[in-house]
Amino acid sequence: MTDSMQSPHIVKSYDRDLEGIQASIMKMGGLVEAAILEAANSLEMRDEELAERVRKNDAAIDALEEQINQEAARLLALRQPSASDLRVVLSVMKIAANLERIGDYAKNMAKRTSVLVQMTPIEGASGAIRRMAKTVEGMLKDALDAYIQRDPELALDVRQRDHEVDQMYNALFREFLTFMMEDPRNITACMHLHFIAKNIERMGDHATSISEQVIYFVTGSIPEDARPKSDTTVYETTGAK
Amino acid sequence: MTDSMQSPHIVKSYDRDLEGIQASIMKMGGLVEAAILEAANSLEMRDEELAERVRKNDAAIDALEEQINQEAARLLALRQPSASDLRVVLSVMKIAANLERIGDYAKNMAKRTSVLVQMTPIEGASGAIRRMAKTVEGMLKDALDAYIQRDPELALDVRQRDHEVDQMYNALFREFLTFMMEDPRNITACMHLHFIAKNIERMGDHATSISEQVIYFVTGSIPEDARPKSDTTVYETTGAK
Repeated sequence: MTDSMQSPHIVKSYDRDLEGIQASIMKMGGLVEAAILEAANSLEMRDEELAERVRKNDAAIDALEEQINQEAARLLALRQPSASDLRVVLSVMKIAANLERIGDYAKNMAKRTSVLVQMTPIEGASGAIRRMAKTVEGMLKDALDAYIQRDPELALDVRQRDHEVDQMYNALFREFLTFMMEDPRNITACMHLHFIAKNIERMGDHATSISEQVIYFVTGSIPEDARPKSDTTVYETTGAK
Repeated sequence: MTDSMQSPHIVKSYDRDLEGIQASIMKMGGLVEAAILEAANSLEMRDEELAERVRKNDAAIDALEEQINQEAARLLALRQPSASDLRVVLSVMKIAANLERIGDYAKNMAKRTSVLVQMTPIEGASGAIRRMAKTVEGMLKDALDAYIQRDPELALDVRQRDHEVDQMYNALFREFLTFMMEDPRNITACMHLHFIAKNIERMGDHATSISEQVIYFVTGSIPEDARPKSDTTVYETTGAK
């Protein structure tokens, strides 16, 4: 059945349902953006209460993903969307999954904050992490804007910026190694900070994946120039063999 | 339209398409299981060639995910599956995504092998990692068997076993901390080994997520007893404050 064979009534109601799901995605995106920034702030301010709040708020993010999946499944079950509408619905489910993962990373970050506040701070680390988090939050915001505005150029821009985040992560990795070698008492704190940095780097990957979904459902394919892969720390040795 | 309204011909052809997708899932699962074991072996045997092969083979896993997604999307576009068939198709896409992630972790593990072979081995680490990988590979195998046989009990069993993997990870985390504190020259190797252990722990989460998909599409819901959450290392301090 092509769209033109459907009554205007059915098409309208389908559009309305799709708009409802997209509104849920934006709401979910807003919660996730807030979680990223608040998790980073809780670390920098050594604010355990804020960290606790971030951990609790993750349940609302998970519930929204569940709701989006159910609405999308209902939409697919009730109607037979055209190929391009189908692409949108499937993208929505993937985007919801990406947002849920980013939310999980923010929650994990907040968990580690609660532990890190017990330890001697590592000089400069929490500021660097906050900047990294801010960059990723900006990428996520733009990826979602690109999604709503069906703007593949903005989406491509997000994809480029993932490179910066990777560089920030690699620089932090080297710094943590140095701190650990200088003083073994730094090891535990640096392990946690390193995890946090890695998780933010992964958030960036998920924001990039959202922007690739946008490119995919606007253009029907994802540009092949395999985006520069992130984690070069596997080649770090820092002299310690 | 209910199933009984469809002609036997259409139902048959739908079933055949679904079987085709499920065969692709099993094929993908086989490749991913092999990747887990080979990545762990390459680390233990310090076999760079094997590690290189694991890295290269990941492309075939990614290609299968792409193929499964396209077949599933085509199936949804061409037919209007019943609610329960729809649940199966959506589960298949999620399972493919889980498998792809596990494959990525195996590839990342193999990358780190290539670096670790340059360093002094950490006593006992690669054996412990191989055992952990073997456990996760067994979970994945059973999760996929549970999927093919629609066996929610086997799926529940997989979910329980994730706990063991978490304990193995936590034990390794403590061990790596000790090695690093003992001798700073161990730090870089331990950081890589720790990443590998964490990635195997995450593979376990994805195998669990596959088994939850099985439970979901057989029973229509996921048991609420929030499975014991994995990463307790956030509470590790090992005396170093």
